[in-house]
Amino acid sequence: MLRFAERTKGAKRSAIRELLKYTEQPDVISFAGGLPDPATFPLEFLARVAQEEILHNAVKSLQYTTTEGKRPLRQALTRFLAEEGIHATMDQIVITNGSQQGLDLLGRAFLDPGDAVFVSLPTYLGALQAFRAYQPTLVGIPLEKDGMDLEFLRRAIREARRAGHEPKLIYVIPDFQNPTGLTWSEEKRRELLEIAGEEDLLVVEDIPYRWLRYKGEPIPTVASLDREGRVIVLLTFSKILAAGLRVGALVGPQEAVNMVVTLKQGADLCGPSLTQRLAVRFLTEYDLKRHFAFLCQHYRVKLEAMLAALERHMPEEAEWTRPEGGLFVWVTLPEGVDTTKMLERALAHKVAYVPGQPFFADSSGPNTMRLSFALASVEEIEEGIRRLGKVVAEEMAALSLAPRR
Amino acid sequence: MLRFAERTKGAKRSAIRELLKYTEQPDVISFAGGLPDPATFPLEFLARVAQEEILHNAVKSLQYTTTEGKRPLRQALTRFLAEEGIHATMDQIVITNGSQQGLDLLGRAFLDPGDAVFVSLPTYLGALQAFRAYQPTLVGIPLEKDGMDLEFLRRAIREARRAGHEPKLIYVIPDFQNPTGLTWSEEKRRELLEIAGEEDLLVVEDIPYRWLRYKGEPIPTVASLDREGRVIVLLTFSKILAAGLRVGALVGPQEAVNMVVTLKQGADLCGPSLTQRLAVRFLTEYDLKRHFAFLCQHYRVKLEAMLAALERHMPEEAEWTRPEGGLFVWVTLPEGVDTTKMLERALAHKVAYVPGQPFFADSSGPNTMRLSFALASVEEIEEGIRRLGKVVAEEMAALSLAPRR
Repeated sequence: MLRFAERTKGAKRSAIRELLKYTEQPDVISFAGGLPDPATFPLEFLARVAQEEILHNAVKSLQYTTTEGKRPLRQALTRFLAEEGIHATMDQIVITNGSQQGLDLLGRAFLDPGDAVFVSLPTYLGALQAFRAYQPTLVGIPLEKDGMDLEFLRRAIREARRAGHEPKLIYVIPDFQNPTGLTWSEEKRRELLEIAGEEDLLVVEDIPYRWLRYKGEPIPTVASLDREGRVIVLLTFSKILAAGLRVGALVGPQEAVNMVVTLKQGADLCGPSLTQRLAVRFLTEYDLKRHFAFLCQHYRVKLEAMLAALERHMPEEAEWTRPEGGLFVWVTLPEGVDTTKMLERALAHKVAYVPGQPFFADSSGPNTMRLSFALASVEEIEEGIRRLGKVVAEEMAALSLAPRR
Repeated sequence: MLRFAERTKGAKRSAIRELLKYTEQPDVISFAGGLPDPATFPLEFLARVAQEEILHNAVKSLQYTTTEGKRPLRQALTRFLAEEGIHATMDQIVITNGSQQGLDLLGRAFLDPGDAVFVSLPTYLGALQAFRAYQPTLVGIPLEKDGMDLEFLRRAIREARRAGHEPKLIYVIPDFQNPTGLTWSEEKRRELLEIAGEEDLLVVEDIPYRWLRYKGEPIPTVASLDREGRVIVLLTFSKILAAGLRVGALVGPQEAVNMVVTLKQGADLCGPSLTQRLAVRFLTEYDLKRHFAFLCQHYRVKLEAMLAALERHMPEEAEWTRPEGGLFVWVTLPEGVDTTKMLERALAHKVAYVPGQPFFADSSGPNTMRLSFALASVEEIEEGIRRLGKVVAEEMAALSLAPRR
């Protein structure tokens, strides 16, 4: 009886989100979720300011706000972003429901069916899902240790154009990417901007993990290197304050932000005032330097535990990334292993991960998986990776891909 | 340089929202905004439960939640809705960012360009804006004192179909409509369902003001009279708890809700956990009966003050609705008066309203205006309407439409 719109034809729920239900059984050590550790949320501070805002600032914290988001929050963000070399005025910032709403609004603003969007192989699943709603052609570009294969990107742009797919956006997560944990070199960031300039494209730079660097020196954001106003930045408070507030922001050229605000009016009128006020207080009153140092120390220990455990327990045919920050390690198993099929064996051994395939726009990567070290304790990480090593060895044996240890 | 999508061509910001900036000068008595009175927000309760949730329930209140929204909230809503005769399971409910996001997701799920959506003349501006993003044909149906002109609706559906516009949705606000304050009779609610059945259409029933009835007996919701699963209900906590939480819900047939959840995943992943937890606590712990009685008493006094002041101060050529609830009174001035033009005179007299034209899908109604009695005090209402009476009289005189008093 229901006659849905044409655009819903290909709509399907994230396989991963459906999978997560199974991975959350008790006794299962899960590396599956992409969640930050609630132990990092500043509870006392949030409880105090929430109470203050509600009792003494209700007209600001409990009434409707503007579509673009609270002024003091956008003002505080101009200063916060300036420290990352991103110089935007308050009017170039719109507050979004996490960075996910930013992705959706970009799709709505820029993508006609068939337009080409360039993403790395693999990339953040939620971005694929957001863009797909607008029926673009998603073009996958191989991801190397220091960023996209940019020669491949140049060719892909030309080919897309020849095939009648208008190139519009290049989507990147240059710092500690989800799902691989990889970080772009400064050289590639600069070359990316050159390509965007030559081809007249916009770069969408998603920086949710920017503040979670556990070693090495920060590399300038793509936006800070941009001289032509081609970069739209997406950020979120999910990993640096608390995920459940769903406060994010989209920052970009004035004309793009104006359009996004216009479209957001129809989409949700405005976001919640209360959570925006909590974010304002966090940015203006909390000791951010100390908080970020605490976050980094907290996750660094877990990342090191996971890398050490992988070294100890994985068959030597397995490869994995060694990120300098973020929440994820990316594992590549020998060809022939299918991590989606292997998940059943993993769950039988009471360990869970996310199969890598859904992160590939071209559905490649069946032998890959994403491990999050954020939620498990150091002890659980050691035990979970021990179990996972066994699962991989068993799976390889079952496929007659005898592991070498 | 920016190449926006085709769908953005007609996108424009709400004229009203832009206007509101001017109406919020000090000294202006404003009947313009559609905001609830913050004096009705239960601050002590919200402050206490916010603190409790953050300190003692952080994994539930500050971590990501599911796309469809928190289980306990959906569970509490099944009971809350049952009292309005709406019997839905938890899985037939999805939590949205206000009811506005529900409108957007319905457009996304159901509307192909050119599809026909039937709305009353006038109707809620935000609905027009949400639907327009999906490029439908909006068909305006005259609104009578007891609901849409249903003979007109029947003809309009047939005509749309003949013209190649597939009829999809009928959008209604049956209780104390925004902007008119009018309420549908039970007879028309039943006939609406008959028509929807005959023509195989969905009815979208938006009930933000349902709990704000100041006199008379409640009339059954359209959804409660539905036997065929044709009604999708939108509700919001904005007017009964606090607008700045942005918690709303969409309730409907399982298949429709499943699609909406799938699409919402790409749109925003999930809403804020904290505000949803506050809504759960409100529904399960607060004395709702007493709270709603308090709301009704609070607004009843203001509505009566406004109706009495209109009687005293308006030229007799003016007509207005006499709502039994909600937040708005709708005024119709003699033909020839243009309330958009008149606004300048009103601001000079330090009083503000919203011109009615943007609420009409066909841009008719230049001589209408919406007055909200929610924010002003009884004294301000008397003084503001006195000023407005003068404004109208002056405007009519200037147009040589001499007022009779």
